[in-house]
Amino acid sequence: MTVYATSPDGPVNWERMLAQRTRSMQSSAIRELLKITQEPSVISFAGGMPAPELFPVREIEEACSYLLRNEPKSALQYSTTEGHRPLREFLAESMAKYGIQHSPDNILITTGSQQALDLLGKIFIDPDTEILTGSPTYLGAIQAWRAYQAQFITIPLDDKGMQVELLEETLNKMDQMPRFIYVLPNFHNPAGTTLPEERRREVVRIARKYDLIIVEDDPYGALRYEGEDIMPIAAIAPERTIYLGTFSKTLTPGLRIGWIVGPAEIILQLVRAKQGADLHSSTFDQMIANDVAQRGILKVHVKKLRKVYGERRDIMQDAMTEFWPEGSSWTHPEGGLFLWARVPEPINTLEIFKKVVQNKVAYVPGVNFYPHGDGGFNAMRLNFSNAQPEQIVEGIHRLGKVLKAELLTKH
Amino acid sequence: MTVYATSPDGPVNWERMLAQRTRSMQSSAIRELLKITQEPSVISFAGGMPAPELFPVREIEEACSYLLRNEPKSALQYSTTEGHRPLREFLAESMAKYGIQHSPDNILITTGSQQALDLLGKIFIDPDTEILTGSPTYLGAIQAWRAYQAQFITIPLDDKGMQVELLEETLNKMDQMPRFIYVLPNFHNPAGTTLPEERRREVVRIARKYDLIIVEDDPYGALRYEGEDIMPIAAIAPERTIYLGTFSKTLTPGLRIGWIVGPAEIILQLVRAKQGADLHSSTFDQMIANDVAQRGILKVHVKKLRKVYGERRDIMQDAMTEFWPEGSSWTHPEGGLFLWARVPEPINTLEIFKKVVQNKVAYVPGVNFYPHGDGGFNAMRLNFSNAQPEQIVEGIHRLGKVLKAELLTKH
Repeated sequence: MTVYATSPDGPVNWERMLAQRTRSMQSSAIRELLKITQEPSVISFAGGMPAPELFPVREIEEACSYLLRNEPKSALQYSTTEGHRPLREFLAESMAKYGIQHSPDNILITTGSQQALDLLGKIFIDPDTEILTGSPTYLGAIQAWRAYQAQFITIPLDDKGMQVELLEETLNKMDQMPRFIYVLPNFHNPAGTTLPEERRREVVRIARKYDLIIVEDDPYGALRYEGEDIMPIAAIAPERTIYLGTFSKTLTPGLRIGWIVGPAEIILQLVRAKQGADLHSSTFDQMIANDVAQRGILKVHVKKLRKVYGERRDIMQDAMTEFWPEGSSWTHPEGGLFLWARVPEPINTLEIFKKVVQNKVAYVPGVNFYPHGDGGFNAMRLNFSNAQPEQIVEGIHRLGKVLKAELLTKH
Repeated sequence: MTVYATSPDGPVNWERMLAQRTRSMQSSAIRELLKITQEPSVISFAGGMPAPELFPVREIEEACSYLLRNEPKSALQYSTTEGHRPLREFLAESMAKYGIQHSPDNILITTGSQQALDLLGKIFIDPDTEILTGSPTYLGAIQAWRAYQAQFITIPLDDKGMQVELLEETLNKMDQMPRFIYVLPNFHNPAGTTLPEERRREVVRIARKYDLIIVEDDPYGALRYEGEDIMPIAAIAPERTIYLGTFSKTLTPGLRIGWIVGPAEIILQLVRAKQGADLHSSTFDQMIANDVAQRGILKVHVKKLRKVYGERRDIMQDAMTEFWPEGSSWTHPEGGLFLWARVPEPINTLEIFKKVVQNKVAYVPGVNFYPHGDGGFNAMRLNFSNAQPEQIVEGIHRLGKVLKAELLTKH
């Protein structure tokens, strides 16, 4: 046995005890940034937080009272890994309206959508396994899968989302099949784009040709402010699509309730992985979400969110038009929580970030969303759901001032 | 690129897409067994469930109302990965009473103690990494770490827990240092044993000599029915002990709130791993637990649990004395939720399990707790916290009948 030379009471050499994968884990840039921006005087467009003043608080209180008076023994007890059955039945029914036909048995409740990403990493990703994603892409997915030592093969986005015409060419250049294709079709985080139906069908065609799995991440699908719903990929190719949903944006994120729906074989593997990961998600929170959903409150609440968030998106865009330097541009998302903005070169959104925060406003620099750090230098992600209208205008104004000043110094 | 021969619409070949580790994952034997035993007519001693009739339901309802009336915007919103600060402060203070001196910054809130085990696996275990554990040991830990392809090196238990005099000899036989030593010092699950202070100190002496980490799993420490508290290992060797606690047994398991306390370097790595795993545990549930704890209710509640569970333990043991065949024996746990019982050979507790369930009673066969499946053939784990006294007597009576009948056929 190798014995390490340390004094009996000396400092522990933790470094040498860590797993290989631990070296791939990084603290999320967003999370670290959020720490700086938590000061109340900062208007932060950095997070992805819903508007807390809209939480259906009274309805949740009613749900708590109802559950604790009528079903306390089950609401506070251990439950099954798969999740609260009535909630899964509700989800199966409500997804059917979007064309996703799966039974409640094909649904696993997760501790937020982040856990869904983690469990997918756990069952699919070996060290150096390649996965295919758009670029930019969701930061939480990069973080979850990097922890399993995934390699990211990227396809650039345009204003309609992933450029699927490059998919087949990219696949043909790869030595090995990617473990799955990761797609955010609705109101992409961070890009704000929506994948048209033709592109969804093209992803499916290619996935079928090469026998690939599609992971469809859809946290914002219900939050559409204009245009028509587009068929989910899971409705087109139920045999090979793993669909992720969440209550974090439509109800509240603090309850940490998400779900995965997919083919039975894969749900079985995910259930096993979740048993070891946290046994099951909070019984109480699942039953609260179910109660609110079953009483029709969720539907009413989502309608309200659509109205308010749609207005905030417009307010933000109007303020950008008014206050930002010429040459700036941004996506016009049909839903969701985020705008993706580009500012005139040579401004680097990461380089000016400290100055931005000193001016009491914040965003997430675009480069953070590129798995290889090879883009987004003059881009930023802006959240429009969390701040109130007057704050949005003030924050965009502050940002505009920094951007204009920056352009003056650079020229 | 390798193209797999499948018809475009044919069944997806999932098997080939799974990660190596997924092959090591098995559905927990306990969970599968529980499915058979969920029928209400079965008296199940198989699970590890608290008594639901004792849940402090009214107090939890008061906490919900208080939080939703006074702090709804934070109670339902995203929060930090580390966990609700006031709860971590409460935990730091309450652990200090047991001699564990750590600041709130050294505490990470987890989604139940199962997540703590998973995160430890994630940061420490590479494929084929060896970890040292007593045998039998906690099934949830085997399951969590097998998912990271750990190898288990085992030390047998006697009636005082891990036979620490074999530790050094075992270490000397190993080619590589184990990643950590896993110890369940109080009211061991499944064995019901409590590690005396001399043995705890010996574990520390050896861990210091070989510069090893100790993982101290203590879900039941507060549930002591007789005897004096023994110093936690984390109090003896704070520099190298990672201590796991949970509210699942002292408050309610449905809220899924556990915690990890340890050296700052390791908490930092665990926070990063948790960011990718589920971002944070339920804000609402953390704040409920905190409210109940801060108002002194937890302390009163634990006192009540001690009385009731202590009585149930005695009732179970008395019933075993009355109804079980000669040659049976069992541990006398000073606390916790479990008895470990041995029945006369040649009875095999796994083999007779179907017959047992047909007789409307259940336990977990001992062999499930042996990482190598090399022991516990005539043993079983019995939970005494969940069933009410008359059910305990009836269930032990039913078990006694099966055991006696079995002995008659075998002789």
